[in-house]
Amino acid sequence: MQTPLPRVLLGPGPSSISPKVQEALSRAPIGYLDPELFEITDRIRARLRTVFGTQNAFTIPLTGTGMAGMECCFANVIEPADKVLVGIHGFFGHRMAEITRRLGAEVITVEAEWGEVLEPAAIAKALDAAGKVKLVACVHAETSTGICQPLEEIAKLAREHGALFLVDTVTSLGGMPVEVDRLGIDISYSATQKCIGAPSGISPITVSERAWAVRQQRRAPVEWYFDWVLLKDYYDAPHTYHHTVPANLLYALDAALEEIEEEGLEDRWRRHVAVSTLLREQLKELGIKAFGRAEHRLPTLNAFYVPDAVDNEANVRARLLQDYGIEIGGGLGKLKGKIWRIGTMGSSATPRNVLLLSAALRTVLN
Amino acid sequence: MQTPLPRVLLGPGPSSISPKVQEALSRAPIGYLDPELFEITDRIRARLRTVFGTQNAFTIPLTGTGMAGMECCFANVIEPADKVLVGIHGFFGHRMAEITRRLGAEVITVEAEWGEVLEPAAIAKALDAAGKVKLVACVHAETSTGICQPLEEIAKLAREHGALFLVDTVTSLGGMPVEVDRLGIDISYSATQKCIGAPSGISPITVSERAWAVRQQRRAPVEWYFDWVLLKDYYDAPHTYHHTVPANLLYALDAALEEIEEEGLEDRWRRHVAVSTLLREQLKELGIKAFGRAEHRLPTLNAFYVPDAVDNEANVRARLLQDYGIEIGGGLGKLKGKIWRIGTMGSSATPRNVLLLSAALRTVLN
Repeated sequence: MQTPLPRVLLGPGPSSISPKVQEALSRAPIGYLDPELFEITDRIRARLRTVFGTQNAFTIPLTGTGMAGMECCFANVIEPADKVLVGIHGFFGHRMAEITRRLGAEVITVEAEWGEVLEPAAIAKALDAAGKVKLVACVHAETSTGICQPLEEIAKLAREHGALFLVDTVTSLGGMPVEVDRLGIDISYSATQKCIGAPSGISPITVSERAWAVRQQRRAPVEWYFDWVLLKDYYDAPHTYHHTVPANLLYALDAALEEIEEEGLEDRWRRHVAVSTLLREQLKELGIKAFGRAEHRLPTLNAFYVPDAVDNEANVRARLLQDYGIEIGGGLGKLKGKIWRIGTMGSSATPRNVLLLSAALRTVLN
Repeated sequence: MQTPLPRVLLGPGPSSISPKVQEALSRAPIGYLDPELFEITDRIRARLRTVFGTQNAFTIPLTGTGMAGMECCFANVIEPADKVLVGIHGFFGHRMAEITRRLGAEVITVEAEWGEVLEPAAIAKALDAAGKVKLVACVHAETSTGICQPLEEIAKLAREHGALFLVDTVTSLGGMPVEVDRLGIDISYSATQKCIGAPSGISPITVSERAWAVRQQRRAPVEWYFDWVLLKDYYDAPHTYHHTVPANLLYALDAALEEIEEEGLEDRWRRHVAVSTLLREQLKELGIKAFGRAEHRLPTLNAFYVPDAVDNEANVRARLLQDYGIEIGGGLGKLKGKIWRIGTMGSSATPRNVLLLSAALRTVLN
């Protein structure tokens, strides 16, 4: 087998990691009750609060990917027969609904076309019709469409109806403002391999006091591995054993969060906007049209229509990967074959990567 | 803060990793649908079949720790009101029962004293009394007691009663014979950070055709993140997206399994026995008595009574860690404060580490 080119990761995640994060990954492991480990996890938890924009005490690096975070966050507050409103404007909204149904909830969905955003009026109407709803959930940055959901009005509606507000920030955290406390988000989960700049395998989650109280009042048992109470007993002193946390992934996450601190969170957000803008300009020159309304497009995940002249879009992606070691993503679900998804996230979000991709695309398309 | 000494990990896991595994960890990440990634996961799956001693098609590296493996393996076959027999001879047997209860099962427990093994006669009696039991479960290598459970007769009993047989091989896989197919184990999960020699964060699991059929006939929904069917659809072609697998942990696992292949599985088992024997001899010279009956002691996790002369056993462990960078484990549950648990697993299992520990213990105890 020929040695493959190192990858330039411009897909929907994972994104590339920096040399500093690579070095941290390879440090010697440490025990799950070692005092030094808790210095690291305490620092990670403080830094995660900063990127989430929250004071929430229960903010932890969950062992598992972003999808583990999704399962964990729903499973702790949803009991069978609870009513849950899930706003769906892409693939990951459907996942939320699927997970919530499996937990035995009565799921009310409010759907927007893929590429559009959820309208607060539609959510208000559904809430009024539903009676007591325990939780309202939606995705902030839809990885399947590249669309950013405005959250302020939905947060207000959830609060007015006495419901918790849960938001997926997998593709926004670390790359754009999240503002958990200012917006009134009660529960959020993310992933480390996108805008945070670490490898996959950890899901940062944060939980408000209000959501914590709902967890404590529940009667039905929680899935053991994802139980917030057991996880809190491990991460807070006196640190009761729950599972063997992956020390190497925590080293890498700590290093990535330190890099965010060094860059400055607002400067990092601006970098994501600048690199995303450059990408759109470059692809526009190639005649490749952006998907979705301009005012809702994410700076972290950029969706483009596959050009009409392309017969087999998967071949284009395969050639980018084979000939140039560049990964971009195809469409998911109903957008399969119709769009390309190009991530400008974390360490991958550089002008150099954008120029390389546009040059490679120009070559492959000609 | 003073830079701590690199750790010599002789606790209940994680164990140390080799330079080759450290190097693999730090490689650049790769996308979750990259063809090269599936070359790696296919190789890992084949190598895991070898260490499990099985031909099971559904043998995968689950994203999560050994405890994720435990949750996953019970959750896929247990439906509410199912009868499950859990044999308990230590802390992790109790965990099995706890997880199974949370899944809504009717749990029948057969308990042995911690330090003893389960008696097949007691299990036969419980099975006869219970009526239809769906699953019989126990722990092969009890990490809390250092005791090895003989499996052959329990496997036979499970089969005779038409029940599936599930075995926790967290502290045995890669360090001693497991023999899934020969023994008739239907479901097993393990962990990578013990005798396999990789970092924590992955749980190898293997499932027989018989258990797979039970999964497919179930009616109640399965926890989404751990659903075997969704995981199979990802790991088998055409590879449907489920979650972003942690490429770096997979690189490390692949490298660790390659080292097992190079060492030879039987030679590796012999090394674990030799190093464990050396440890017992060394500690006997210090007047430290081994816990449990000699014929049931594990070669991977060695339990010893805390000497009577020691007032505060936690101080001894803290001094080993602070002064010499050596981790050993304390007792769990009802053995807390009564025993020390010393792992001789994977890359940590060397004569050098044993001599260092016994010399350090001699100094600390005097």
